Amino acid sequence: MEQPIFELEFKVRDYELDLQGIVNNSVYQNYLEHARHEYLISKNIDFAALHQQNIDLVVSRIEIDYKAPLKSQDKFVVKLQAAKEGNVRIVFHQWIERLPDGKTMIDAKITGVCLKNGRPIRPEDATGMLW
Amino acid sequence: MEQPIFELEFKVRDYELDLQGIVNNSVYQNYLEHARHEYLISKNIDFAALHQQNIDLVVSRIEIDYKAPLKSQDKFVVKLQAAKEGNVRIVFHQWIERLPDGKTMIDAKITGVCLKNGRPIRPEDATGMLW
Amino acid sequence: MEQPIFELEFKVRDYELDLQGIVNNSVYQNYLEHARHEYLISKNIDFAALHQQNIDLVVSRIEIDYKAPLKSQDKFVVKLQAAKEGNVRIVFHQWIERLPDGKTMIDAKITGVCLKNGRPIRPEDATGMLW
Amino acid sequence: MEQPIFELEFKVRDYELDLQGIVNNSVYQNYLEHARHEYLISKNIDFAALHQQNIDLVVSRIEIDYKAPLKSQDKFVVKLQAAKEGNVRIVFHQWIERLPDGKTMIDAKITGVCLKNGRPIRPEDATGMLW
Repeated sequence: MEQPIFELEFKVRDYELDLQGIVNNSVYQNYLEHARHEYLISKNIDFAALHQQNIDLVVSRIEIDYKAPLKSQDKFVVKLQAAKEGNVRIVFHQWIERLPDGKTMIDAKITGVCLKNGRPIRPEDATGMLW
Repeated sequence: MEQPIFELEFKVRDYELDLQGIVNNSVYQNYLEHARHEYLISKNIDFAALHQQNIDLVVSRIEIDYKAPLKSQDKFVVKLQAAKEGNVRIVFHQWIERLPDGKTMIDAKITGVCLKNGRPIRPEDATGMLW
Repeated sequence: MEQPIFELEFKVRDYELDLQGIVNNSVYQNYLEHARHEYLISKNIDFAALHQQNIDLVVSRIEIDYKAPLKSQDKFVVKLQAAKEGNVRIVFHQWIERLPDGKTMIDAKITGVCLKNGRPIRPEDATGMLW
Repeated sequence: MEQPIFELEFKVRDYELDLQGIVNNSVYQNYLEHARHEYLISKNIDFAALHQQNIDLVVSRIEIDYKAPLKSQDKFVVKLQAAKEGNVRIVFHQWIERLPDGKTMIDAKITGVCLKNGRPIRPEDATGMLW
C-alpha cells in the first residue's frame, strides 16, 4: 500500500454488527466518511460549516473491496490518500487495517465533487486546498 | 437500463437524511441490501436461516455511482438484475429510480460470494438456484 | 391498548438486526420517529420544511418498554396516539404490534417540544394543529 | 450527578447528525450501548461471547431525558453507574457530558435483564459479577 497522508483509529462497536456477527457492509462507509471529515478538519475544512455557505462536498462514486470482516472488539485504523482528478474531482484512496496485525480488511476508492449552490466547482476554490 | 427481475418500493425516512438534507451515502447500501434479501426470499432463499446452517452470503465488492440525491418524502424503487460470474460469484446490478418521475438516482454493481464454514462454494450448491 | 389515531406498517430489514439476530434497541426509535413524521405529514405538518423556517420539533424525553423482540422477516405496525401536556409539550403514545398475531412488542411514550429559533413555543402556533 | 464507575470518551461523527444538524435521537442509544458493552468488557464480560453460550443481555426498558443536543465536532463522555434491582434486573444510570464544559446533554436509565435460552436468570449466575 502507498503512504497515507492521514490515519484515524477506531474500535468496532457492537451495534455495528449484523446477525452474521460481523460489521455490516454499509457501516464501513460510515468509517470512511468519518475519516475523510476528520482529515478535512485537520486541514481546516469543516464539512458542516461549508454546508452553511451552500458548499457541499458530495460523493459521486464509491468502490469498496471487502477482503476480510471486522468483528466485535476489533481495533483498526482507516488510512487515506487524496489526489485531484480532472478539474472538479477529488479521489480518496482509503483502506482499513486491523490492529495490531495490520491485515487489510477493505480497500476503497471514493470520488468526491465539490458543489456550490448545486453546481460543481474546483475544490481549491471552495476549500483553498490544493490536493 | 436493462429489464429488472425484481423490484421493491421504498420511501425515504427522515432519520436517513444527513445535515445536507439528503440521504446519507451509506444508507443506499441498506436499501440495496434489503432489496437483495427480499429478492432472495422471493426465491425461497432465507439469508438469516442460511446463516444458521453456517452458510453466509457475503459482499466482496461494491461499486456505486451516485447520480442525484434522495430527499425527505421521496418515494423510489430499487430494481435488480443478477448473474453468475465465474464459479463462485454472483453479480447484482441494482439501480434506484425515484418515483414517479423515474429519474435514476444511483447505479450499483454488487458482487457477492457464498461461504460455507468460511470457504467459497458454488451459489447453486448453497441455494439450489441457478442464476 | 387505546384507539390509535394513526398507524403505519413496516417490515424488518436484515441490516436492522444485531448479532443476537433481533432488531437492535436503537432501531425502534427509528421506527417510532418515522411513524411520527408520517403522522405529521398526514396532518400537513412537514418536519423538514418546518426546519427551513427555524422551527424544530424535538424530542425531550423517551420511555420505551421492550416486551418482545422483532426478528428477520417480521411485519409489524406502529400505532400512535397524541395529546398536549401543559402549554408546550406534546406526548405521543406509540406502540408496536407484530403482524399478523397482534402481539405488543414495545410500548413507548415520547415527549416532544416545538422550538422556534431554539425557544419553546406552543405547538399550535407552529403547526396550526390542536392536539 | 453521582460518581461514575465507568466512563468512555467519544466524538460526534457527521453521519450521526440529522437534517437539523444535531445528533439524531436514536444515535444516543448507540453511544449508551457501546459504553455499557465496554464497561462489561472491562469486567471480563463479553456480550458477543455470551451470546455464543445462549446467554443474552437484553434491555427491557429505557428512559432518556434529552437536555441539549450534540453537534458536529462535539466531544463528550458517557458516564455510567450500575445497580441490581430485584433478582434479575440490572439498572444502569448513564449520562452524557459534553467536553470540555461538562454540560449534561442526556440523562438515561436503562434496565437490563439476563436471559439464558430465553429465560431470565440472576445476572451473577451468567456473569459471575455482583453489582
